[in-house]
This record gives sequence, structure tokens and C-alpha cells, in this order.
Amino acid sequence: MHTPDDVYALYYWDGLPGRGEYVRLVLEAVGAPYVDVTRLPKEEGGGHAPMFALLRGEGPGLRPLAPPVLVHDGRAIAQTANICAYLAARHGLVPDDPGAQAEALQLALTISDLVTETHDTHHPIAKALYYEDQKVEARRYAERFVAERLPKFLRYFEAVAAANRDGGVHLLGDALTYVDLSMFQTLEGLAYAFPRALARIEGELPRLMALRGHVAALPRIAAYRASPRCRSFNEHGIFRRYPELDGEPAPAS
Amino acid sequence: MHTPDDVYALYYWDGLPGRGEYVRLVLEAVGAPYVDVTRLPKEEGGGHAPMFALLRGEGPGLRPLAPPVLVHDGRAIAQTANICAYLAARHGLVPDDPGAQAEALQLALTISDLVTETHDTHHPIAKALYYEDQKVEARRYAERFVAERLPKFLRYFEAVAAANRDGGVHLLGDALTYVDLSMFQTLEGLAYAFPRALARIEGELPRLMALRGHVAALPRIAAYRASPRCRSFNEHGIFRRYPELDGEPAPAS
Repeated sequence: MHTPDDVYALYYWDGLPGRGEYVRLVLEAVGAPYVDVTRLPKEEGGGHAPMFALLRGEGPGLRPLAPPVLVHDGRAIAQTANICAYLAARHGLVPDDPGAQAEALQLALTISDLVTETHDTHHPIAKALYYEDQKVEARRYAERFVAERLPKFLRYFEAVAAANRDGGVHLLGDALTYVDLSMFQTLEGLAYAFPRALARIEGELPRLMALRGHVAALPRIAAYRASPRCRSFNEHGIFRRYPELDGEPAPAS
Repeated sequence: MHTPDDVYALYYWDGLPGRGEYVRLVLEAVGAPYVDVTRLPKEEGGGHAPMFALLRGEGPGLRPLAPPVLVHDGRAIAQTANICAYLAARHGLVPDDPGAQAEALQLALTISDLVTETHDTHHPIAKALYYEDQKVEARRYAERFVAERLPKFLRYFEAVAAANRDGGVHLLGDALTYVDLSMFQTLEGLAYAFPRALARIEGELPRLMALRGHVAALPRIAAYRASPRCRSFNEHGIFRRYPELDGEPAPAS
């Protein structure tokens, strides 16, 4: 895929939001021009084949191990939080100061950890096996996730938002950063995959819930999500709705 | 813990190298002054209590979720690869260019993914449970790790090193970066925890093995590893020697 230097090329699995969606939200929030390569028709250089070529080391720059991959300016950049941070620095979605950028990346990587553990609820043994082949272990993993890990992560982010006293709804500083976008996407995914678990705890998360509403209402994000470019969650991505993993319903209040 | 502005304060679990060792290797490689806080005597402000205070949000800057944490210049910086990247940019262990820094971080985060999966071989279900309480699942996880994931990661890094044609032993560019140090530490850990699995594949990894030898021979790294500041691997960290997880011995050649 050859795009002009000022156009980003995103390579990710078609058919699911997955980790690619974290990158898309940054691109959409700043209105950056990009091509979602695998979603193009094959006759226009799309489909999965160009992504697999990148992963075989046939693209520009450093060979990536896994998607999402952003190709820009002769480089192939992988790792979700890294791509988001790279774009954010170029488009004003993170402060210029190296210390503030380290704080932002720290939060983004902690969100990545939560995303990985969320994925592992349905794949605790091996990515190469189907969910159906690890359902027993998934049930045991998910019990601990719902009871311990998910509340631990979300209470942590709520505390970070609460400590950011002059920051309004933002996790860091007083303006939108890519960390807010990544937190939004994670909350959306959790609401899809773990509605009961989230319902049990969301009363403790007023700032995160306000952040979620704020990001959803950003004009560019709202327009994107109403467009055909934005795909729904389904049972092929990170966030899957398997009710057997979601614990008991919240008690009636 | 109050240190002068030009002295770094590292907070990590005492008694194991763990993820803290990735940060120590960067500090040691550049000869930066630092205090390993939890290893100080309690009467000098050491022990684990100051680390727990940081994790409760009682320190400077952003509250971290988990160690390692580096306190510097009024900020508390967490997430291993993030700390290493922050230090590397300050001390010349990564190029100044944002694109090259994104490539370095991509590799560092892919090493982090390997480290996380290595950890999960003995903790596939829950970090809060003992290994003894998840041995059955650990056996199943480790079988796939040894057969599929470990070779996939290491062949990937070998291919990255091989593609860096003018880079000598380095993974990126033609000079030492923090990525080389992190790769070294990971290979050391794997040699400790998975000696059979590594022996089966190391013939395919000439560049990684050369990198391992190169880093071990760097004067500051060699001096550090011979010092009491460097702790041995043991069964309390990421890299644990549980022979039942390490697959079959390599066939005699």
C-alpha cells in the first residue's frame, strides 16, 4: 500500500474493532487522513494479504510481530499504545513535555494491561486455541477477573481521574489526550462484554462514567461512531459477550 | 524517600530481579546515580512501606498501579518499558528521533509481551493465587508456550536483528539501546527458567546469542552483575525454574 506521506496507512484485522479501534479513535479525533488497508477492496490493494506481507517483513522499516500496524513516513509502527502515543505527539493529543508524555504512556500501558487481561478471560491458555477448547479454564480465570482484577483496574483509573483536580473529566491534564480515548474504548468494550460486572461497580466510577459520556459526545467521535467506518463489537475480538464469564447480575437496589 | 533531583529513586519488590531488573540495567549501563529504595534499611527510609505508600497515591505526581516505579523530578513513572524509554531518552540509550523512538518502544513492548506470557506460564489463572493452586492450568499453558509462543517471539527478534544489517549485534541501529538491554535480561531469564526450551531453539538464534554475550561483557554491566546489587533469579519472580513446565530435553545431536 503506497499512500502519500501525509496519509497514514492502518493495517488491522477486518471485521472486528479489536486493538485497531484504539488507533482509529486517535486518527478520527484529530481528523487525520488515513487508509484502513484491509477494508479496501483487493483490487485497490486491500484485504488481509498486504497485512500479512508486513508481518513477514516485506514492508518498510522495522518488521512488526502483530497488528495493529501504522505505516507512516517509511516506518512501520506496531504496539497499540505506542502507535497512539506516536500519533498523539504529532497531533496535539498529549503535552510536549517528556515527563508528561511518560505519565500518559504509563496510563495507556496500564489500559493495555487491562485489555490483555480482558482478552485472557476467554483465552487463558492459548491464543491459538478456540474459546471452546479452554472454556473450563476461562470460567475460572473470569471469576477472578470479575471479582478482583476488573474492580482493581477501574478503581485505580477512577482514583487517577479524581486526583486530577483541575482536569475536568480528563485522566491527565486539562485537555483531551489519547489516554482519554483509550479509556473510553475500554469502557465501551467492557460494557459490551461484561455488562453485569460493570453494572456492579459503575456507581463507584462517577468520573470514568463522565469521561465516557464526554468522549462519546465529541463531534468527531460521534460522527465516526455513526459512520460505516466504525464496526460493532462481536465475538471475534478482545471484548466478547459470553454471559457465562460475566458473574452474577447486580442485586436489585 | 527524598533524593536530590539528579538521583533516581527506584521502587520495586526486594528479593527478586523481576521487572525492576530491566530498569536497573538501564541505570547501571549509563552509570546514573540511583537509590534502590526497598533495599535500604528501614531506618534510612527503605523497606517496602515507602513503595506501598506510592501505590496508595501518597507520592509525588501520578499514582502508579504497580511497581516498578521510578521517582524523578517530582514525577512517579511506572510501567517497565516506559521507565526504560524515559531513562534511555535522557541518557543516550535511544536515538532522539521520534520515529526511531517509536521503533525502539515497539520492540520493548513486544519484549514486555513475551515477559508477560512467560510469567503466565506459572500464573495462567490469577496473580492472586499461588502456583500450587493453578498447576494443572500452568502445565497446559506452558506446553503451548514452549511449543509455539516462545519460538515465535524469539524467531521474530532474531529476524529483527538479522534485518538490521549494519547494526552489528544490536537490535536497532548501530549502537546500544535499552532494547538490547531488555532483550539480554529476557534471554537470561529464559535460560534460567526454560533451559530445555531455549536449548532446543538457540541454534536458530545466532544473533540473539551474540547480543547476549555482548551485553554481558559491557564493562558496567559485568561490574554490576558481579556486585551485591544484582540479585539472582529465584522462584519468586517472573522467571521461575519449574522443570515440569519446561518440556522435554533437547534430543542428543
